Amino acid sequence: MVLFSGGQDSAVCLAWALQRYRMVETIGFDYGQRHRVELQCRLRILSGLRDHFPWAAGLGEDHVIDLTVLGQISATSLTRDIAIEMAEGGLPNSFVPGRNLLFLTLAAALAYRRGITTLIGGMCETDYSGYPDCRNETIQALASAVSLGMDRKYAFLTPLMYLDKAATWRLGEELGGPAFTELVREHSHSCYMGVREQRFIWGYGCGECPACQLRARGYEAWRRQ
Amino acid sequence: MVLFSGGQDSAVCLAWALQRYRMVETIGFDYGQRHRVELQCRLRILSGLRDHFPWAAGLGEDHVIDLTVLGQISATSLTRDIAIEMAEGGLPNSFVPGRNLLFLTLAAALAYRRGITTLIGGMCETDYSGYPDCRNETIQALASAVSLGMDRKYAFLTPLMYLDKAATWRLGEELGGPAFTELVREHSHSCYMGVREQRFIWGYGCGECPACQLRARGYEAWRRQ
Repeated sequence: MVLFSGGQDSAVCLAWALQRYRMVETIGFDYGQRHRVELQCRLRILSGLRDHFPWAAGLGEDHVIDLTVLGQISATSLTRDIAIEMAEGGLPNSFVPGRNLLFLTLAAALAYRRGITTLIGGMCETDYSGYPDCRNETIQALASAVSLGMDRKYAFLTPLMYLDKAATWRLGEELGGPAFTELVREHSHSCYMGVREQRFIWGYGCGECPACQLRARGYEAWRRQ
Repeated sequence: MVLFSGGQDSAVCLAWALQRYRMVETIGFDYGQRHRVELQCRLRILSGLRDHFPWAAGLGEDHVIDLTVLGQISATSLTRDIAIEMAEGGLPNSFVPGRNLLFLTLAAALAYRRGITTLIGGMCETDYSGYPDCRNETIQALASAVSLGMDRKYAFLTPLMYLDKAATWRLGEELGGPAFTELVREHSHSCYMGVREQRFIWGYGCGECPACQLRARGYEAWRRQ
């Protein structure tokens, strides 16, 4: 089961999983995020994969989980209309405390019901945004807790953990060639502001939020290589 | 912050916390449970504590989190209308995989926002219902994962972990005397079927579900002592 948000990272993770596993299910979370447009983007990527890539034949059920409770719990810029700035402690204001812990725990609960024990996510230490719930140590500690709490051995795989964004584009190309990176460039969504009207060489977005800048820099670094 | 469901165990935990901490907040979860009547019971216990027990003066804000997503994820007897029986693996059918992992992670996210790092819950290894997410090893593994993922040191305390139900009643009496055990007996709710119409010496319920039987046995063992 791949945690598939519709972003660039999870799209590459999905390709990675599809080439390694016979059957792959996907899960996404609707938590009232301002960049909720990613929920439509993810459907376009899923149908693009199904229609054009023979190696995506193992694509199984897609689950979208209503997680508006996140907005109830946390007043942060990702779920409400507050400017994205650095908050105290050096963490971006968009930090929903432990968001990835919740995503993974919920995915594991659903996976339990479906007889799946391998969860794959695009968490990554190298984008320097400082989210402690993206660190390998955190993810693996949670895998232990979840395995104990559900009495079943789970593996949490994060193939992008130590890649920078340029390396992620490169991995995407290795996995699916230019046709796949084109699908990712066109349909994956990164912009925190949810902007899809402006087009850049690296995709759509506001071009100014930290997510757009990270995506732009990564894309340009990859193209220069 | 005390995970307060309105059950007997969490009511005793709440008294335990109120006598040890200056300020105590409470959190409950509405997940469409069949025994949803416990959400009303918890309010009666909270107002009973406020009105009659001077040591409950530190009772702060109460939070009820909408967690209908649990029902979306899991088709089990606690959240849907299926008979309560033993399922494969010896676990009761009412098992929502990793329910306590989710409760604790959500409570920690809310606690983060409120500057609280001590979570207290009534999880207990000794009621033999076999829930792996109630075990001490699970809870402490999750405390590590949450502390890493939120970059803040959390303590998860479970004062009932090694007590049986008779010992829990006894602890309640030590903490608050007969007036408190009477409040717990009258207003705490255990019955999985959500029955409040039938009265027994140990409280209200159907008298037949595993939760009622456990409560009845514990109460009788305590009274015999």
